[in-house]
Amino acid sequence: MSLIVQKFGGSSVADNERIFNVANIITRAYNQGNDIVVVVSAQGDTTDELIEKAVSINPNASRREMDMLLSAGEQMSVALLAMAIEKLGYPVVSLLGWQAGFETTSTYSAARIKRIRTDRIKKELDKKNIVIVAGFQGINRFDDITTLGRGGSDTSAVAIAAAMKADLCQIYTDVEGVYTADPRKVPNAVKLEVISYDEMLELATLGAQVLNNRSVEMAKKYDIELEVLSSLKQSSGTIVKENTNMEKMLISGVAKDCNVARISIIGVPDRPGLAFKVFSLLARKDINVDIIIQSVGREGEKDIAFTVAAGKGDEAVRVLEEHRAVIGETARVIKDEDVAKISIVGAGMESHAGVASTMFEALYDAQINIQMITTSEIKVSVLIDKDDADRAVSAIHSKFFD
Amino acid sequence: MSLIVQKFGGSSVADNERIFNVANIITRAYNQGNDIVVVVSAQGDTTDELIEKAVSINPNASRREMDMLLSAGEQMSVALLAMAIEKLGYPVVSLLGWQAGFETTSTYSAARIKRIRTDRIKKELDKKNIVIVAGFQGINRFDDITTLGRGGSDTSAVAIAAAMKADLCQIYTDVEGVYTADPRKVPNAVKLEVISYDEMLELATLGAQVLNNRSVEMAKKYDIELEVLSSLKQSSGTIVKENTNMEKMLISGVAKDCNVARISIIGVPDRPGLAFKVFSLLARKDINVDIIIQSVGREGEKDIAFTVAAGKGDEAVRVLEEHRAVIGETARVIKDEDVAKISIVGAGMESHAGVASTMFEALYDAQINIQMITTSEIKVSVLIDKDDADRAVSAIHSKFFD
Repeated sequence: MSLIVQKFGGSSVADNERIFNVANIITRAYNQGNDIVVVVSAQGDTTDELIEKAVSINPNASRREMDMLLSAGEQMSVALLAMAIEKLGYPVVSLLGWQAGFETTSTYSAARIKRIRTDRIKKELDKKNIVIVAGFQGINRFDDITTLGRGGSDTSAVAIAAAMKADLCQIYTDVEGVYTADPRKVPNAVKLEVISYDEMLELATLGAQVLNNRSVEMAKKYDIELEVLSSLKQSSGTIVKENTNMEKMLISGVAKDCNVARISIIGVPDRPGLAFKVFSLLARKDINVDIIIQSVGREGEKDIAFTVAAGKGDEAVRVLEEHRAVIGETARVIKDEDVAKISIVGAGMESHAGVASTMFEALYDAQINIQMITTSEIKVSVLIDKDDADRAVSAIHSKFFD
Repeated sequence: MSLIVQKFGGSSVADNERIFNVANIITRAYNQGNDIVVVVSAQGDTTDELIEKAVSINPNASRREMDMLLSAGEQMSVALLAMAIEKLGYPVVSLLGWQAGFETTSTYSAARIKRIRTDRIKKELDKKNIVIVAGFQGINRFDDITTLGRGGSDTSAVAIAAAMKADLCQIYTDVEGVYTADPRKVPNAVKLEVISYDEMLELATLGAQVLNNRSVEMAKKYDIELEVLSSLKQSSGTIVKENTNMEKMLISGVAKDCNVARISIIGVPDRPGLAFKVFSLLARKDINVDIIIQSVGREGEKDIAFTVAAGKGDEAVRVLEEHRAVIGETARVIKDEDVAKISIVGAGMESHAGVASTMFEALYDAQINIQMITTSEIKVSVLIDKDDADRAVSAIHSKFFD
């Protein structure tokens, strides 16, 4: 007998038919003699609808009241899913975040889980109940409801798996697993059987929105084996776990991220400490910088370019313009949002030379210009024109996988 | 400075405009220097929609999961109302039943409040916050969410007023107060300035759905002054309190109840203990009996007739048919739902003779036949044909008030 944590996203419980589909998945695993803890998100568009309602009343509503409102979404979905399981004739109990013992930091709308008091969940499992837990929510030390931020239900699931020392944590979603590229765009994309935590983390960061990043980090930290699989098709998914001794795949995927803006500062005075000053300025404003290149410009000057999330582009430009003392009176600040970041990820890179150059060759063959490059141990990213993005993914994928 | 508890029903917060209207009422009272605790129901039809959703999944869902689902309705409305008050620039905090300290019995869907731990509410009032509490809900000793049943928000409000020793408990609704008759049916119905708890209880029982009965009982027990008033019109409402020395009104209202069925048992053997056996049979099935008449029938037999709530009519007939040993093999059991109960209520009756006969005279003048009569110290009720109900109310009202 194993303890399995199963997580179902909002689209998996969007209507009655899907709720019963999920109820069947759960009771099948229960029938196999497993203890089952289920984490559920709010149904379909519920969260977006609640946000819209809140904004129509007060666009500057406090985060505390926002969390109070949004957590009702999961409350409704756990109750409805429990009712469906009752209908199938199984013992079941639904629990809210606070009932399931989720204690979080005080930061509303972006709380972090401090710990889970698992007594109640254990008691319900001892009674042979299927336990349905509301994802995305907890309480802080003031006994106020907090939410974990978007994608927080993945984190809720992994946190329960860690706290309960579960044998497996299954993340059910609307894709069948982790692919070498977006299967809707690249027809010969391949589903991976296994991927390491680090590769998964790089893929998530790079815009392959299969798993929330915090959840993968937590799974890595507590060594929880994840399985990403489809709630709609019965087939095995992708296992995410620590790299084992099996032969490493050269690369595990090609990812595209169009939510990116390039900021260029042209003609900065070439003085020591410039990069430090520019990027600490941005850091103080909570603007995360990704790729950075610094080139030698004309005599006594240089150019600096970097990328930020698209939504942060305007703010980055404003911050720089307001600090002419740092970038000099004559430097020009330019924003370009018609860019995309294409990345390849793979633990095999560490031991295989030439992976980056194979990627560059694929782009050259497709006549796609590279604007910026950055690399890490298991990742190569390039910035290219947004219009070339899908073509670039296909070209790179063919080069490595065909 | 006073402590005022204000309760707003679902129709008072049905849309954004009404939510801001309620927010204005609340902040006006706050501006006058009062401590304000507000109890809110779920918005408009939310509760009915959630019930419908539940039934579409599982018509036999457990009451525990039903309470889990329904309590989300008030959770959304308290958050939205708090956001509106934030928008107006006032300090506010919303609390769920469990956060506000509502401890109830374990009976899901029909829990009774055992006590309210008021620490949190007091702490928030000390911080000068307006406190918005979710009505209708609490938690039981298992830390599970319970609901108080329909109309429970009135009870929540009075319970807080009692626990906090509030100076006034205002029940805002869509009528302007308690009237001598339904003002939509009887044009010259008069709004009462004051009514006693007992009169209010009789009126509530009799189908004048202004206040939930449990809440009036609780207000009487803890001597909480209630004010029933409109959330849509700014005018004083009706005060409900213990009878004072002021001159008693002869009658305080005429009420109509069409939710009633008459059950007749014709030709029962005339044996001692018959009434006891019939009505204890019904009591064991939780069927409440209202008016009872027993007439002498043919030799050695008698007829018994009584009224029950319309929804219990079929069950009452079935119970009786199944216990032929009690009612005899030859008795006939007949159900009639085309009846209405018309009542007059007034503390003044006790000391004034002839009130009942004035009522009967009004009905005679209108040529309306009386089927059954029952009286108490402050009430006279008659059962008549349902088609005559509105005409009867008008006739009686004119007799007493014109």
